[in-house]
Amino acid sequence: MISPLDKLIKSLKKFPGVGEKTATRYAFFILNANQSDIDELVRTIEIVKRNLRLCSRCFHLTDDDLCNVCRNDRREGSRLCVVETPLDLLAVEKSGQFNGVYHVLHGLMSPLDGIGAEEIRLNELIDRVRKENVQEVILALNPTVEGEATASFIRDQLKQTKAIVSRIAYGIPVGGSLEFSDPLTLSRALEHRTKI
Amino acid sequence: MISPLDKLIKSLKKFPGVGEKTATRYAFFILNANQSDIDELVRTIEIVKRNLRLCSRCFHLTDDDLCNVCRNDRREGSRLCVVETPLDLLAVEKSGQFNGVYHVLHGLMSPLDGIGAEEIRLNELIDRVRKENVQEVILALNPTVEGEATASFIRDQLKQTKAIVSRIAYGIPVGGSLEFSDPLTLSRALEHRTKI
Repeated sequence: MISPLDKLIKSLKKFPGVGEKTATRYAFFILNANQSDIDELVRTIEIVKRNLRLCSRCFHLTDDDLCNVCRNDRREGSRLCVVETPLDLLAVEKSGQFNGVYHVLHGLMSPLDGIGAEEIRLNELIDRVRKENVQEVILALNPTVEGEATASFIRDQLKQTKAIVSRIAYGIPVGGSLEFSDPLTLSRALEHRTKI
Repeated sequence: MISPLDKLIKSLKKFPGVGEKTATRYAFFILNANQSDIDELVRTIEIVKRNLRLCSRCFHLTDDDLCNVCRNDRREGSRLCVVETPLDLLAVEKSGQFNGVYHVLHGLMSPLDGIGAEEIRLNELIDRVRKENVQEVILALNPTVEGEATASFIRDQLKQTKAIVSRIAYGIPVGGSLEFSDPLTLSRALEHRTKI
């Protein structure tokens, strides 16, 4: 085989969920693509690796000191949504339902894996809530054991502040079907039923 | 959103079969990967784009004048396997069953799309068979209308030479099941049954 192409396939196989076949397809795509498209790709990769860092306030990704959300003075600073990762933040942004600011934890508490409050951006969250006069803290964490543990910890830590702590609703996904819902989701959906 | 990351996602969405979600996963992978892994990836992309060209004899990809197969003097030059793309060549190589040389057409004849013998490396194939004293031409083309048309054309063109023209067998894939085979494959498999 052709050694540079071999090397490229090897590099592409490190991408998440990419095996030999997909990596080969991608490598041939790169080989046959316009030179200008590939130049653009390479330049963007380099910019992302060189310039992106964490927002000094909410720890979202940014190429400046503050991120887009924190720089935007139309966002309500009194409502703060807590997420695990920048990807989760983007998912909430896409819903278009939230006009407050964020706090990215970059992880969840997991005592078994040795991840406590110090390993993630939890102390920074508690500090922010105190200093920034936050009225409501909305937890948008995944409904896993780690997510629940982190949510309880945050609730306990914020008891002495005046902030209301809430959590996004668990239930049947829109467009989902009862038949294929797992029992736990269904029991949560029943428990948190709302009057119509 | 963060504009360089946005741009990267846009670039990655051009990859075959990659949508918004996969592109976002890849972009975050790149963001979080080791700097050295990404440097290696970028360097390899640049080498592939700059140095890879077609072998002057068989039109496989190479970073030299001749490809690995053509440079290898242990390969039998008298047996020539005709494939559509370099990817097909790699698939045949992986079978480990072929010790001859190749000819990559870079396409198949398709009169409806205006692709005739001149648009692909067909004339070069006919010339090679005449000049290189080829004994057998094995057609490893996809069993599509275009593959069949190209195979017939090659067989007709090579009638005046002494080369035997053969075609790889169609049939039930190893590990496949009769139940799920399409009728055409099954009828070909019956037609080309072999005595045991």
